[in-house]
Amino acid sequence: MTNTTFSNLNIVCLAGGVGGAKLADGLTQIVPPERLTIIVNTGDDFSHWGLTICPDLDTVLYTLAGVANPETGWGRAGESWRVLDEVAQLGGPDWFRLGDLDLGLHLTRRHWLHEGKSLTAVTRHLRQQFNVQCELLPMSDQPAPTLIETADEMLSFQTWFVRERWQPAVKKVHLPDDVRATPQVMPKLETADIVLIAPSNPFVSIDPILNVYPIREMVTDLPQAVIAVSPIVGGRAVKGPAAKLMQEMGLPVTAQAVADYYGDLLDGFVYDQQDPPGSVTAEGLQTLRLDTIMPTATERRRVAEQVLGFGQTVASSQ
Amino acid sequence: MTNTTFSNLNIVCLAGGVGGAKLADGLTQIVPPERLTIIVNTGDDFSHWGLTICPDLDTVLYTLAGVANPETGWGRAGESWRVLDEVAQLGGPDWFRLGDLDLGLHLTRRHWLHEGKSLTAVTRHLRQQFNVQCELLPMSDQPAPTLIETADEMLSFQTWFVRERWQPAVKKVHLPDDVRATPQVMPKLETADIVLIAPSNPFVSIDPILNVYPIREMVTDLPQAVIAVSPIVGGRAVKGPAAKLMQEMGLPVTAQAVADYYGDLLDGFVYDQQDPPGSVTAEGLQTLRLDTIMPTATERRRVAEQVLGFGQTVASSQ
Repeated sequence: MTNTTFSNLNIVCLAGGVGGAKLADGLTQIVPPERLTIIVNTGDDFSHWGLTICPDLDTVLYTLAGVANPETGWGRAGESWRVLDEVAQLGGPDWFRLGDLDLGLHLTRRHWLHEGKSLTAVTRHLRQQFNVQCELLPMSDQPAPTLIETADEMLSFQTWFVRERWQPAVKKVHLPDDVRATPQVMPKLETADIVLIAPSNPFVSIDPILNVYPIREMVTDLPQAVIAVSPIVGGRAVKGPAAKLMQEMGLPVTAQAVADYYGDLLDGFVYDQQDPPGSVTAEGLQTLRLDTIMPTATERRRVAEQVLGFGQTVASSQ
Repeated sequence: MTNTTFSNLNIVCLAGGVGGAKLADGLTQIVPPERLTIIVNTGDDFSHWGLTICPDLDTVLYTLAGVANPETGWGRAGESWRVLDEVAQLGGPDWFRLGDLDLGLHLTRRHWLHEGKSLTAVTRHLRQQFNVQCELLPMSDQPAPTLIETADEMLSFQTWFVRERWQPAVKKVHLPDDVRATPQVMPKLETADIVLIAPSNPFVSIDPILNVYPIREMVTDLPQAVIAVSPIVGGRAVKGPAAKLMQEMGLPVTAQAVADYYGDLLDGFVYDQQDPPGSVTAEGLQTLRLDTIMPTATERRRVAEQVLGFGQTVASSQ
């Protein structure tokens, strides 16, 4: 730990996949692991080949473990595809690309879940095996499938996202209303000094977390500073379908619209330097404009430092 | 088909794993595929990593497809172990060695079973993908787990066989008594001219098949010739725990004891030339002594020809 500025703050970060993993990667470089908790969306989780696949948890895990594929941001570096090629050869479903190393994790997780362990316990075991020190928590141990309603049909999230390459226009995102947070998530939120909302998709990565009872209520009511980082930069999504979803929802594709969408939840908002100074404003909302693009470890650390520094300012002014 | 001697006979072969696969491999070389049915033990099937593993079905399938590992007799030629190594790395269970190619099949099968297809339907699809022409049938579509009772505990078959390397002495083999044959198995037995019992383990490979209602009754009552090939050669098992099991059951480890064990079920019995001429006799039982060791395709064909020729003689004398 070369910087101890943040060593007395409890930090919770709500994260989806790639964008969440990048900010989390920066945070691990400056926050002591016992002070840092990443709460990850599991609304994307689904069953495939009889296995429980947790795309966002695994993206964050692989990134923090330093084994993520540096080109895609998800999946494993040095991955191979022997099993998938055989499944395709046999006429099985091959639209969801599970690599051999990735499968090793899915099979191990399936085994432990089948033995009765919770997803939280399995995730802890896996992160320890990967030597990831900070807490990594699924938002819930219950299944919490996000469903995507298109003009024609209701699709599971991964079917829409991967199989259909997020092309069918989204009429509505459906989130389950009966999912509860775990006994591990709640005390982390209760004792958080700063809650960060990663630059993940607000509608299909962050909303599913906030929708787990009582996470939204706790984030709203508790006195901690809540800071979101915009996933919309210069009128475009850094990655994925956020911009397309906003258009389909009739929203302008702007950082301002993201801030408005989160609304009263936020105390602070971070937007990118590609957007004009002063382009995001709301009553009672403090803002920070900086370079939020963070492909490398060094830039992730820089962004994490700037965001947490801003978070401290926001917290101390409350 | 270079030999048409057997082209008018319906042949059914009851088979376990490696020994059954070898005889089946010989039969496919001389019997037209529409006349040949291999009924395979599924008592060894078990759930591992959440997948349905069918060791005997897969050994027969891989052998007939020409993709079996020539050294072990089971598993795939050119197999790799990337997934298993990762499972081991993560602290998951790695005692059952599933290779990458093998896993491709297990995951595909799991997917189709999960969709509601029967094991019979899945097996047909898989054999067609592997271009295996003859009928390959699981003995039942119901789970039919063979349990091994040792002095200390009751073990699933694969736990005893693989994890414990068949070392704990067997007190009793337990077979379920409520398993029924499929609508695919029954007409094949009804129309069989010759039923072969492969040189598989009588207690844990063949008994589980015979125990599926009403397979034993049909094999006993119907007028077809029933011919067994001894898995005990020169006082030893060609492979696996048959000899050890016989000792633990208080039986002499001889081909004669195998013939006695099958008893009235048999019309003919084939034993190896390593045993003395005339060393197997029983009232009403015709016997044939030959070289039953068949590592190569050529020898499998020779054994199949000799056994079927003997079967024809037995059938015509009934």
